[in-house]
Amino acid sequence: MPEPIKITFLGTGAAIPSLRRNHPAILLHYGGDYILFDCGEGTQLQLQKARVSPMKISKIFITHWHADHFAGILPLIESLHLSRRKKPLEVYGPEASRFIDALIELSYWGIGFEIIAHDCDEDKKIEKIFENDSYEIYAIKVIHSVPAFGYALKEKDTWNIDVKKAKKFGLTGIQMKKIKERGKIKIKNKVIKLEQVAKKRIGRKITYSGDTMPCKELFEFSKEADLLIHDGTFAEPMEKERPHSSAAEIAKLSKKYKIKKLILTHLSRRYKTTDEVLNAAKSIFKNTEVAKDMMKIILK
Amino acid sequence: MPEPIKITFLGTGAAIPSLRRNHPAILLHYGGDYILFDCGEGTQLQLQKARVSPMKISKIFITHWHADHFAGILPLIESLHLSRRKKPLEVYGPEASRFIDALIELSYWGIGFEIIAHDCDEDKKIEKIFENDSYEIYAIKVIHSVPAFGYALKEKDTWNIDVKKAKKFGLTGIQMKKIKERGKIKIKNKVIKLEQVAKKRIGRKITYSGDTMPCKELFEFSKEADLLIHDGTFAEPMEKERPHSSAAEIAKLSKKYKIKKLILTHLSRRYKTTDEVLNAAKSIFKNTEVAKDMMKIILK
Repeated sequence: MPEPIKITFLGTGAAIPSLRRNHPAILLHYGGDYILFDCGEGTQLQLQKARVSPMKISKIFITHWHADHFAGILPLIESLHLSRRKKPLEVYGPEASRFIDALIELSYWGIGFEIIAHDCDEDKKIEKIFENDSYEIYAIKVIHSVPAFGYALKEKDTWNIDVKKAKKFGLTGIQMKKIKERGKIKIKNKVIKLEQVAKKRIGRKITYSGDTMPCKELFEFSKEADLLIHDGTFAEPMEKERPHSSAAEIAKLSKKYKIKKLILTHLSRRYKTTDEVLNAAKSIFKNTEVAKDMMKIILK
Repeated sequence: MPEPIKITFLGTGAAIPSLRRNHPAILLHYGGDYILFDCGEGTQLQLQKARVSPMKISKIFITHWHADHFAGILPLIESLHLSRRKKPLEVYGPEASRFIDALIELSYWGIGFEIIAHDCDEDKKIEKIFENDSYEIYAIKVIHSVPAFGYALKEKDTWNIDVKKAKKFGLTGIQMKKIKERGKIKIKNKVIKLEQVAKKRIGRKITYSGDTMPCKELFEFSKEADLLIHDGTFAEPMEKERPHSSAAEIAKLSKKYKIKKLILTHLSRRYKTTDEVLNAAKSIFKNTEVAKDMMKIILK
């Protein structure tokens, strides 16, 4: 059974926060890993509401350095320090080093743990920025008024041995483990390939756009994604507005690129309910939801 | 009738915030002036709860640069910029210029209004840092782990003419205005002094300590203050803790210095209710309250 991937929308507002929508922050929980995407003002209190200790957070991925997307880092760092954190905290983003340096300059209290800044490469459209045994994380350059990245978590594909079939080929338990590691095995001068005794499970893919206008590269990379969390600042395309997306545009692209589930977030506070944004998207792409603060999604 | 002075406790917690107590911020409303003392994370949402537009805030007095006391400034500045503020914002504090420079360094969006930083003089125990027709504001050096100031608002004393008495001395309406301005007036070669025809009204005095150990200068300056808002992090003095105050110590000093009303704030999150802190103070100094988020006090 694959690990469930749990996603908690800690903040789903845009620009000026409201009492209904906090500044952007998304918590992703995969196995033992707790990862934040963006960290707007009030994120540590939202984590308290979600009953997740900030001490568990290992990585923060900042889409871009507008204050609504990162102003929660400084007070979070102070709280981690006061909680005697020793484990490093990794922060990814465009010009992450520059911004983390400025945040440390503001940190009178002296941070008792290391903050490791990873600068996403602004010359690359897509870059693998992290990898472990289970998944990879990619930065995808998006289109905003300042350097900005979306992020995608791509779970690695895995093979599930069909024990019955494997036994027919005469494989022992140890040999089943070996064929999974090596892709093939030789038994009595006969080569058995992994695909003969196992079924491939395609890893899940989740993309978070951050703030962006509709971005072709992001959709190409997110093709058939299990979940796309996208800027849905407006219901319809706006003129003379800052470079964001509208629900209708994103719904069209989600349909074209066979996204399995779309969640729109970063709603303008002009919308008192979700109806306008939701309807604009849902009439085009059925499997759409609009995020709300503290909403939880579990991908099984 | 004097202007009522309205005080709203936007945040009353300490260090790590809780869902009960936000990070420190106190709003003072006097006539047309809206002033903030400290501006912890989430202050702009607390202002929304108090139904006060942040556009009205003219001055922010930061007691010290621990993130729990100032991390709300950056996202507040962004919101003010997005609301097209043009009016300057004044920020007072120890090393205010240095910290405001670092905050501006973090401001990708380009701030569309001026932020005027006023550095409180760390070599002075007490310094008058602002004055208008109605009141003066003083910075009082306090005792914390980093440079820190308390702030006091001292309303100017005023004279109320006793019209009956003034008429007995033969003063016209214009002469009553003049004697108030000049302190005396000469009528028919006879000098009439203001105190002969008017009664002095002592201006109100409000002090906010910020984070501090018990500080003699602060209490001397606050003698007979109408309101003292003081660090009440703990109920009883703590050993090996950071330099804060306890309710019992502050209650004793409030009694000694004839404070009219004491409000303890900045409570440690170890206290689930206010009882422990309140009782420790109230048994010594009766007119004590413990602040709660969104509590309002009106001084008439």
